[in-house]
Amino acid sequence: MATDALHIVIIGAGNVASHLCRAFDTSKHKIVQLYNRSEKGKELADEYGISFTTDVNTLSKAEVYLIAIPDDAIVDFAEKIPFKESLIAHTSGAVPLSVIEGSSTNIGVFYPLQTFTKGKPVDFSEIPICIEANSEENEKMLYKLGKEISTNIKRIDSEKRKLVHVAAVFANNFSNHMYEMAYSFMMKNNLPFDILKPLIKETADKIQHQTPFESQTGPAKRGDQKTIESHLALLKDEEYKEIYKLVSQSIKNTHGG
Amino acid sequence: MATDALHIVIIGAGNVASHLCRAFDTSKHKIVQLYNRSEKGKELADEYGISFTTDVNTLSKAEVYLIAIPDDAIVDFAEKIPFKESLIAHTSGAVPLSVIEGSSTNIGVFYPLQTFTKGKPVDFSEIPICIEANSEENEKMLYKLGKEISTNIKRIDSEKRKLVHVAAVFANNFSNHMYEMAYSFMMKNNLPFDILKPLIKETADKIQHQTPFESQTGPAKRGDQKTIESHLALLKDEEYKEIYKLVSQSIKNTHGG
Repeated sequence: MATDALHIVIIGAGNVASHLCRAFDTSKHKIVQLYNRSEKGKELADEYGISFTTDVNTLSKAEVYLIAIPDDAIVDFAEKIPFKESLIAHTSGAVPLSVIEGSSTNIGVFYPLQTFTKGKPVDFSEIPICIEANSEENEKMLYKLGKEISTNIKRIDSEKRKLVHVAAVFANNFSNHMYEMAYSFMMKNNLPFDILKPLIKETADKIQHQTPFESQTGPAKRGDQKTIESHLALLKDEEYKEIYKLVSQSIKNTHGG
Repeated sequence: MATDALHIVIIGAGNVASHLCRAFDTSKHKIVQLYNRSEKGKELADEYGISFTTDVNTLSKAEVYLIAIPDDAIVDFAEKIPFKESLIAHTSGAVPLSVIEGSSTNIGVFYPLQTFTKGKPVDFSEIPICIEANSEENEKMLYKLGKEISTNIKRIDSEKRKLVHVAAVFANNFSNHMYEMAYSFMMKNNLPFDILKPLIKETADKIQHQTPFESQTGPAKRGDQKTIESHLALLKDEEYKEIYKLVSQSIKNTHGG
């Protein structure tokens, strides 16, 4: 093991935790333990040959604790970690750094900006990791940690991270809901959702190279009211109609229609 | 040239037309002419060594005319084509087959279900092509045409194609507008949109292998009202607030929240 390698304990066994295990597995840093409150994490720990515990009293001592559990459980757990000089970092987009101030003299945030799916590996090297810490030294440690698994480390404070999280809700949750609406509409009409998959893939690919503004097409952008009206007539569901109207209007406003 | 090769005339010089030129360039079928009402198409025609005209009176005779011009110009143009026994097909998702009935005894639709960007090549072989015709023989001809450039040819009638087009608006235009809102919000707050790109790519990748329902994550799905309220407070713009609320509510309804 390299001399500047860090010992890490991962807290949690969900999507983020499991992708962190996979990412650090081939790095010079070493996950020395995985904690989860239930036995659910045992399999994950075994997969990577990591020691596992469900008992906070048997937590190993490590240089860094990465907390990857639901937002509202972070503070309580952080305070239970008995090693008050280790660096304790959570991995949440929405939780400010300050909430874990009571848990250690060394605290930080290590937020991988990605949507993780169980069992679907992602190329971690492309994932932006937003870091923040309560001292320059701690920030350097998080940077050192991150750069072994990603080429894209960003220093982003709590206030800005919260804004990034809002934008991520639009970019991820809301765009996925547009797929969901397309899916439901196709199903209701006995049409195969599969034929929309290349379109969805290309829509996301386009904005890797040009702005969403430049990418926009369709009836709302063109101000094609006739097509908009005919689409509304086909959407029987009131919620669907309302979202169709509101988003079309917003596209029109954006494109000066 | 193979004996069952077809001669095609392409009408138009926009995104769809240019991608059709590229796709057929390496197929056994031959584009014998490109028509556009302005000189704008000359460069495209030259690129593929296709003869070019802006004069409808010099249209070449061909077995198939593929009309790739704006929806509201299709009918008028189709009627100008003097070869009343050639197969005339438009490439629009929203226009019914019947509107070009007056233009030929042989009519059809050849609708590639994709969003095309000028200068960005796409793998045409994966693009679903929705075909429809006024006779079995014409449908076979469109099938023969399509299968040289795509592995995914679907017979879809006008009524169903209109429904597919509605779903495509959600899957493409509306998801792109969610990117646009994320983009504007990041810009307003002096944050780099780039850090959201891997997230957007992965969001689209996920639904290639699981349903959008299974893919959904985030505060609305979890029913996390505290985060929703804090996000609304950060969205100063009324339109953004309204879309955030409505889409979040729709996600909650979908996931039984």
